Amino acid sequence: MDGPFVETTFHVRYAETDAMGQVHHSIYPVWFEEARSELMRQLGSHYAEVEADGFFIAVTEMWTRFHAPARYGHAVTVRGWVEAARSRGFTFRYEVRHARTDQRLATGQTKHICIDRHGRPCVIPPWLWEKMGVERET
Amino acid sequence: MDGPFVETTFHVRYAETDAMGQVHHSIYPVWFEEARSELMRQLGSHYAEVEADGFFIAVTEMWTRFHAPARYGHAVTVRGWVEAARSRGFTFRYEVRHARTDQRLATGQTKHICIDRHGRPCVIPPWLWEKMGVERET
Amino acid sequence: MDGPFVETTFHVRYAETDAMGQVHHSIYPVWFEEARSELMRQLGSHYAEVEADGFFIAVTEMWTRFHAPARYGHAVTVRGWVEAARSRGFTFRYEVRHARTDQRLATGQTKHICIDRHGRPCVIPPWLWEKMGVERET
Amino acid sequence: MDGPFVETTFHVRYAETDAMGQVHHSIYPVWFEEARSELMRQLGSHYAEVEADGFFIAVTEMWTRFHAPARYGHAVTVRGWVEAARSRGFTFRYEVRHARTDQRLATGQTKHICIDRHGRPCVIPPWLWEKMGVERET
Repeated sequence: MDGPFVETTFHVRYAETDAMGQVHHSIYPVWFEEARSELMRQLGSHYAEVEADGFFIAVTEMWTRFHAPARYGHAVTVRGWVEAARSRGFTFRYEVRHARTDQRLATGQTKHICIDRHGRPCVIPPWLWEKMGVERET
Repeated sequence: MDGPFVETTFHVRYAETDAMGQVHHSIYPVWFEEARSELMRQLGSHYAEVEADGFFIAVTEMWTRFHAPARYGHAVTVRGWVEAARSRGFTFRYEVRHARTDQRLATGQTKHICIDRHGRPCVIPPWLWEKMGVERET
Repeated sequence: MDGPFVETTFHVRYAETDAMGQVHHSIYPVWFEEARSELMRQLGSHYAEVEADGFFIAVTEMWTRFHAPARYGHAVTVRGWVEAARSRGFTFRYEVRHARTDQRLATGQTKHICIDRHGRPCVIPPWLWEKMGVERET
Repeated sequence: MDGPFVETTFHVRYAETDAMGQVHHSIYPVWFEEARSELMRQLGSHYAEVEADGFFIAVTEMWTRFHAPARYGHAVTVRGWVEAARSRGFTFRYEVRHARTDQRLATGQTKHICIDRHGRPCVIPPWLWEKMGVERET
């Protein structure tokens, strides 16, 4: 894997569980987002700076497949990486595993575009690619 | 009860439950907020207009007592009313009941101040009291 | 549309928004789930009864495409319908629209299986199809 | 401070923010709970084991005062400690601070009871006090 890659491990929060005794499926996109945040932090940048500069990364599509339930008491490892990068958007992929047993719990994907202060899609500026660790040919 | 009063009934969402099989305690402030939103809607106004005018109602304190668990499958009724209104803030009180049995599930209170676009506390403008149905002596 | 179809309208909750000023993308699966709950309520049944009988409907896959942001102040209409029904699972599709303008905000899909008390996938019993309003050939 | 004390630091998640650009007030109880979970983990025990043994720690009351907004981009430190321990319940107190500037963002309190498998309040067993690091006179 050549592109930017992130791995972050944390504990399931009790508030993330549901009456079925497992993590509610709506939580996984939150974990995916946390992996994206962590990627930028590990690169020494921060997504908050992107918004401060008037750019916003919006989600245009998300997809998740659930392989096994995550439960309270588990530590989970979320891995994320940029799968594709185009001038106006990019695709992230994710894998969630049980941190101790390495059992695969979920896989996912999100697609993103960059929008400006006025909510208009825009070309992603080179400094933003850099903040995300993506090398693109010009 | 003379002041503004609201009552709204809705179903517990599955996503609001936790592994204990009941509604997670962090959900009640969300329901309280929904009662405040509903109060303004019933008065023909809308909190979104308040923010559009550059004013924000912030929560400075919240308190909840839990009497009995709410569960998925229940419809709950949230009642809310303004308990106290001062020039720079107000207090809301709430009661959550099982809609069918009328069992009391929770009681709560939130305190609020008004802040301006710059995050500074400000005197609540008369039109805002009006939108909330609060009659105040001048 | 022949199969079971549901339409439910509600207001965006303030707690559902994020710092981008719009509904966070992780909220849409919660709305989809609420549409599924509402479908069963409109048919006079309730998903809580399904779990009480020892069956659980789990999500195995979810997908959402975001067309336009939902914001606080909007009422949204979620439409949901069963797209495919097999012996051990089914697919739901969804459409979220701005209730007043009818603008399409999001489309989505979830796939489900039925699991028993022991967490094992099982054939969906006829009474469960009935509760969901699905007519299946035998 | 003699009793059990915990300190845990993590980043604000984007999903925890609201349209006011700050962390929604309903998130703080989730952070408080995470501090309680972390306390037990630091003591080498785990709340999941408590539930596995048929005991549940329920929240009977919660209270939070908000001093300054937490925002995306912040790391926050949550400190928690047992304030009072009785035979059938205990009180936790919390402080949330900006991890870098040490600015106090919120203070809070939760009250808890122990309930058994049947939902009945029960005397907290000695081994549970031990798991939480509470020394109680007999």
